[in-house]
Amino acid sequence: MMLKDKWFGDHITPHIVQLHVIDNIVYSGQTRFQHVEILDLKGSGRCLVLDGKIQSTEQDEFIYHETLVHPPLILHPHPRRVCIIGGGEGAILREVLDHHTVEKALMIDIDEEVVGICQRFLPSLHKGSFYDPRVEVIFADARRHLEETDGTFDIIILDLTDPLPGGPSSSVYTREFYSLVRERLSPGGIVSVQAGCSSLGNISVFTQVNHTLASVFPYVFPYEANIPSFGSNWGFCLVSPDNYDPLSLTSEEIDRRIAERVTDRLRFYDGITHHGMFFLPKYLREGIKGEGRVITDENPLENLWD
Amino acid sequence: MMLKDKWFGDHITPHIVQLHVIDNIVYSGQTRFQHVEILDLKGSGRCLVLDGKIQSTEQDEFIYHETLVHPPLILHPHPRRVCIIGGGEGAILREVLDHHTVEKALMIDIDEEVVGICQRFLPSLHKGSFYDPRVEVIFADARRHLEETDGTFDIIILDLTDPLPGGPSSSVYTREFYSLVRERLSPGGIVSVQAGCSSLGNISVFTQVNHTLASVFPYVFPYEANIPSFGSNWGFCLVSPDNYDPLSLTSEEIDRRIAERVTDRLRFYDGITHHGMFFLPKYLREGIKGEGRVITDENPLENLWD
Amino acid sequence: MMLKDKWFGDHITPHIVQLHVIDNIVYSGQTRFQHVEILDLKGSGRCLVLDGKIQSTEQDEFIYHETLVHPPLILHPHPRRVCIIGGGEGAILREVLDHHTVEKALMIDIDEEVVGICQRFLPSLHKGSFYDPRVEVIFADARRHLEETDGTFDIIILDLTDPLPGGPSSSVYTREFYSLVRERLSPGGIVSVQAGCSSLGNISVFTQVNHTLASVFPYVFPYEANIPSFGSNWGFCLVSPDNYDPLSLTSEEIDRRIAERVTDRLRFYDGITHHGMFFLPKYLREGIKGEGRVITDENPLENLWD
Amino acid sequence: MMLKDKWFGDHITPHIVQLHVIDNIVYSGQTRFQHVEILDLKGSGRCLVLDGKIQSTEQDEFIYHETLVHPPLILHPHPRRVCIIGGGEGAILREVLDHHTVEKALMIDIDEEVVGICQRFLPSLHKGSFYDPRVEVIFADARRHLEETDGTFDIIILDLTDPLPGGPSSSVYTREFYSLVRERLSPGGIVSVQAGCSSLGNISVFTQVNHTLASVFPYVFPYEANIPSFGSNWGFCLVSPDNYDPLSLTSEEIDRRIAERVTDRLRFYDGITHHGMFFLPKYLREGIKGEGRVITDENPLENLWD
Repeated sequence: MMLKDKWFGDHITPHIVQLHVIDNIVYSGQTRFQHVEILDLKGSGRCLVLDGKIQSTEQDEFIYHETLVHPPLILHPHPRRVCIIGGGEGAILREVLDHHTVEKALMIDIDEEVVGICQRFLPSLHKGSFYDPRVEVIFADARRHLEETDGTFDIIILDLTDPLPGGPSSSVYTREFYSLVRERLSPGGIVSVQAGCSSLGNISVFTQVNHTLASVFPYVFPYEANIPSFGSNWGFCLVSPDNYDPLSLTSEEIDRRIAERVTDRLRFYDGITHHGMFFLPKYLREGIKGEGRVITDENPLENLWD
Repeated sequence: MMLKDKWFGDHITPHIVQLHVIDNIVYSGQTRFQHVEILDLKGSGRCLVLDGKIQSTEQDEFIYHETLVHPPLILHPHPRRVCIIGGGEGAILREVLDHHTVEKALMIDIDEEVVGICQRFLPSLHKGSFYDPRVEVIFADARRHLEETDGTFDIIILDLTDPLPGGPSSSVYTREFYSLVRERLSPGGIVSVQAGCSSLGNISVFTQVNHTLASVFPYVFPYEANIPSFGSNWGFCLVSPDNYDPLSLTSEEIDRRIAERVTDRLRFYDGITHHGMFFLPKYLREGIKGEGRVITDENPLENLWD
Repeated sequence: MMLKDKWFGDHITPHIVQLHVIDNIVYSGQTRFQHVEILDLKGSGRCLVLDGKIQSTEQDEFIYHETLVHPPLILHPHPRRVCIIGGGEGAILREVLDHHTVEKALMIDIDEEVVGICQRFLPSLHKGSFYDPRVEVIFADARRHLEETDGTFDIIILDLTDPLPGGPSSSVYTREFYSLVRERLSPGGIVSVQAGCSSLGNISVFTQVNHTLASVFPYVFPYEANIPSFGSNWGFCLVSPDNYDPLSLTSEEIDRRIAERVTDRLRFYDGITHHGMFFLPKYLREGIKGEGRVITDENPLENLWD
Repeated sequence: MMLKDKWFGDHITPHIVQLHVIDNIVYSGQTRFQHVEILDLKGSGRCLVLDGKIQSTEQDEFIYHETLVHPPLILHPHPRRVCIIGGGEGAILREVLDHHTVEKALMIDIDEEVVGICQRFLPSLHKGSFYDPRVEVIFADARRHLEETDGTFDIIILDLTDPLPGGPSSSVYTREFYSLVRERLSPGGIVSVQAGCSSLGNISVFTQVNHTLASVFPYVFPYEANIPSFGSNWGFCLVSPDNYDPLSLTSEEIDRRIAERVTDRLRFYDGITHHGMFFLPKYLREGIKGEGRVITDENPLENLWD
């Protein structure tokens, strides 16, 4: 690295930047909502970058997408109708469609241009999922769309970019939005949420999202996974009006459900991985316990840096 | 970051570098064995860098040191005699000495200069542990020292720098060395080993160390923790001639032992953290299972990049 | 470079940054007026950085300081009284004092702290010049001081930091200030001015300063020198109410005056260097000719980036 | 710069790297001889990079190409036959063909692939010059070609990449090669040579090339120009068996010859620029004078870093 190299810099914290060696810039442009780049990074493969933040790389996207999709679908007894909010790469769709029980997958993304760019340049991520007959894709502001329609879902997956002030996701991390999401759940429904960095020193988005979800849902189970291209651990939440304690299923039962319901061989998720994800380290549990802020339309998320 | 900034660059993989903003360079020099720097990094605090790799930062060193020390000492029924190999910062000593059961802690480090620099510039790490009457520090090649002496220990902790070819640690990651370590264990003894990066894409040191340990010890339990300043997850191994299955103790039993035996309030480690650490993700378990290389004096560790 | 390295980044243009390998951070702090750092840079030696911009490095400061000092002092028939505005390092003083004709050197710097730091940490730059009996140093706002006093000078040297908006130098690059400087010249007096980058693509400070000087002085002679640690060529102006055409003296005459008047052996400046500096390339002459902006208190310098 | 940015790093010295913001990677690949990239750099436009070193950018290539071409063609009384060695971008051709007197321009470049890439991606540099009927392009090792053929030229222009050990240019900076070049000159012929960095601290290629040329040609006139995208000044040599003192022509005579002979309006070169280029600063003249090394096939160029 250095001589002859071309780099992409991604801020991990205000004081740490991760440099990736660039092989190629496949696409770079501005949509109505955000800046979008498709880069080929040495070692990480093709990747999607939105507003300067890596969203997915070919090398490790399976970790992120399996983590967000499979816990709620496996815990649910028979998930038929799934709603994905965000998820522009189509890889959330890909994982959802692997569940035989799924009859309908509705994806709502605000940015049609990003989805088109991903369809064209990231086939290894969506693997043609957009063309599955069970899929419907709507390009809309998800919050407005949920307000104006009344279908319900067994599973709702929130795969949104980070809530940067003024960015396209600032209004979909609030108590008001989560209440709306709760109303769109079928009885027994489960929600999974990407919830920000969970590495020591940068957990405040994660703890605020946890606390906000807890103001709407009686059961909130935070979990995390290590995503190398994000340069950190990443936090998720599994929430529901009902008590689906993720540790109540044995590893063996989870593996049995995977074998029964899921087409493809998973690379990250199985019963043992599932158990590991829900045991958070002490400082993180204490950070969540000590969090007092609820994100609302009037009191937006705090402590973000850029 | 950028204008007015000073940076330190740490290679995470051959194609990814993590840049840290430097507040101050406290010390920089070359010992007989390695290049050593004490830096003040913005956000991470004071840190020790050996041969260009961050070893410990004030912000997150507790994760690394609690992870390497407490699992073996808590699993052991009554650890009295502890041997630390490496551990120049004195923070391993600090954690070990917090166990009331410990009567003797022998630390063997090859580099007296590094230990002196840490004693002077990193008091928040060692917290005076070097001056505890239970402590003996020997400056020697650990392998030669173990060969030439015959004491035994309840716990042996290998806190060595990465095995860079030609570096000071190249001969202490081999089957030959691990056999020697096994001979120095008391009956019922346990060894913990720092074992390299465990993040996807960079696991080959970890899998080789696992496989090499498994050629010497019947019981090898790999585990991992996220260390933000390393820019990745980090792998460890708990090994013994006896079967101390780390998941055989309940969280409550672990918390009870901590309360009984350990002075200070821990920030990372407790019963729940313990359980989470030993559930590895699927790709990592498969990587370890598929590893066939045993590191020996004649066949040194492969696949290292620099 | 890279592994093990620590860097300092200096913006050359909005799109180009020059990275220097840091050996040591000698000092870093904030004065009332600006951020100041003393760094040891590999290959460039000790250097002064103000508000994130390199001001002087041991390796090449002689180019900058000889260029700003000797042309006016050599062109003047007998310079006795010299006023330096800025010049915190003391290296302008050093060059001025080397002229036997100089009886009095008044230095006016706004930032006493910076001067103290340079006295302490940059002895190779000032070489004790602050303690020469011909020297008087006043810590004051130069503009106010010149307004309130009435001495005159044969030579006035403006060695000011770049006129960043809101920075300590924003009011001393204006027509109003240059008019005040003109009033403080003795008959036959000459002024030299550091006038910003002169490399293609970044000449607008230089052309505006030229045009502003030309609104006050009938004779303005722009010149430039290559300063490696600035990552570019640097522009200067020699101005006077009288016509001192710098190319009217032969190289031989310049060398003769140097031999007669100057103590130390110069490394950059002599008769041939002098001639080269005043022949500017075509694009730069055309840029200066095409400039129409005059910097005034009401219309500050434009086109600055940061 | 930083968040969202992609960079290219170019080593200026062993301890200084210049970072450029990348807009696009147009081409990146390996030929038989070298690594080649076409990048769009923010602020500098499209550029050619060979083996990690910037060769030309749209913004400032005119400085380099005018500097290498016009001094020898203007000094020569009537240049008809020109030989260019290297010059893959076609911009040397472009400048040569602007001289009405030129009847024949032979370009010998070792790397047909690079020339094809430049023809396709850098039309603003070659401006169609490859298709001028006066042009002949030969893809060959220039040294072997000159040995095996016997035409002579009024002007020979050496536009070669830096002589990196093992690189494609290592054998064409030697006394042996320069002797061969001398034999291919017509009576009264002149050679111009790109001769490496000439900024303080990095002049040893330039001084060795100067001294080597002086071992073959009685008249060697070094000169320099500032090339912003190279991050430094750049050195050139004008050499001949005959005495063409570049300062013997007045600026007015040079401007007259330009007006008579050259089609296009030049942006860098004219009579005044010409004079400025040949007055080198004192440290550079002394560096050249003190150089004792002659580059030969057996004693290759020293002091190169990479």
